[in-house]
Amino acid sequence: MATGKALYEGKAKIIYATDDPHILLAQYKDDATAYNAQKKGQIMGKGRMNCSIATHLFQKLEASGVATHFIDQPAPDQMRIKAVTIIPLEVVVRNIAAGSLCQQTGLTLGTELPKPLVDFYYKDDALGDPFLSRDRILLLEVATLEQLDWITQSALHINQILMEFFQQCAITLVDFKLEFGLDGQGQILLADEISPDTCRLWNQAETDPDRRVMDKDRFRRDLGEVESAYAQVMERVLAQPVQ
Amino acid sequence: MATGKALYEGKAKIIYATDDPHILLAQYKDDATAYNAQKKGQIMGKGRMNCSIATHLFQKLEASGVATHFIDQPAPDQMRIKAVTIIPLEVVVRNIAAGSLCQQTGLTLGTELPKPLVDFYYKDDALGDPFLSRDRILLLEVATLEQLDWITQSALHINQILMEFFQQCAITLVDFKLEFGLDGQGQILLADEISPDTCRLWNQAETDPDRRVMDKDRFRRDLGEVESAYAQVMERVLAQPVQ
Repeated sequence: MATGKALYEGKAKIIYATDDPHILLAQYKDDATAYNAQKKGQIMGKGRMNCSIATHLFQKLEASGVATHFIDQPAPDQMRIKAVTIIPLEVVVRNIAAGSLCQQTGLTLGTELPKPLVDFYYKDDALGDPFLSRDRILLLEVATLEQLDWITQSALHINQILMEFFQQCAITLVDFKLEFGLDGQGQILLADEISPDTCRLWNQAETDPDRRVMDKDRFRRDLGEVESAYAQVMERVLAQPVQ
Repeated sequence: MATGKALYEGKAKIIYATDDPHILLAQYKDDATAYNAQKKGQIMGKGRMNCSIATHLFQKLEASGVATHFIDQPAPDQMRIKAVTIIPLEVVVRNIAAGSLCQQTGLTLGTELPKPLVDFYYKDDALGDPFLSRDRILLLEVATLEQLDWITQSALHINQILMEFFQQCAITLVDFKLEFGLDGQGQILLADEISPDTCRLWNQAETDPDRRVMDKDRFRRDLGEVESAYAQVMERVLAQPVQ
């Protein structure tokens, strides 16, 4: 497989064309950004760590019946993926109150939610990725009602699988962000990545609210030991079977 | 009716107790605020104008079968109202894109929406009145699912009545904010006020995007002629029958 033209460069990945128009290559980067790219930096080894974690989690989800864009991992920091048209929604599933949910609702960090909450944000950097209601999603024609219902149910199903998986890793899945895409047949596939960049993950062996953090909040909040936290997540994730 | 203790002072009204615990007195003020009270000023005569406009619109809605907190208007700037517990939601009905909807979605000012949009904001000054999804409203227990469905349907019904009413005034009802409250029997009543402070109203005789504005946007955006715009709304509203 020859690596073709760079089609898109995002904050954490470059997407390349391949010889097959239905297949793209995602090159995972060490670059890290936060607060809509107002804060920038690097996390050494993040590209290969996130690619390996995402590969394992996509394999786990596929084995559980979730259709994803994942094909394989030809190199530690490269993933072959099915070409999809990304639906411009950031779908955030929350089990425990953290981050913007706390700021916007006054809920205390760490509050266990009575049931998982699915939040939608408009994937639009110029607008600052605003929070969207279902009615606003339909107004903006970002997704149809049927797609929105499908995505919501799929996000909750994925949450169930990932919560149990991370529980086996002695990690609490606080919240995470998903993106979905449409393939040529109009089928919705889970896309983007699942990694410490896109999840809040708390080490169950720690109770201190800063020490327990194993995700990009270490970078966002300058907590230090970013690389070793990512490495620890990778070690625990890869130790679990995908079947 | 003796005027009792001030129970609550808001940005635009003071609420007083009366001899009857089921009845309160709303004293409409000339004070005007915008941007969550970061901008403050006065609009001369606003108290009596808004009280008169709101009285007329509440009477119109009552005549159309909408239960409101309105009792009567004992003085030009005073309204007797039923005592309710306010549900801490700002319910915004939008017919045309304006204000924060444009900023948050990229829709162009003046875009006609294919159907009315009902937006909810958490009535919490400390949090900056954040936009809420239905799921977040239920999570925060701001309202039950039944109350939320009832409020949504009621808001759309009120929109239908007010759109037609303002059409008779040669005014376009762009959007407006409602608040609802629970009486002692758990019945939901339309509360607060409906006035140029809480509606976007565009003069159909004007096409210029600034000159057509007949509402608090004149104050927010320093467009001038605020008092005369409010007076013009009052004159047109009071000229229409309520039955």
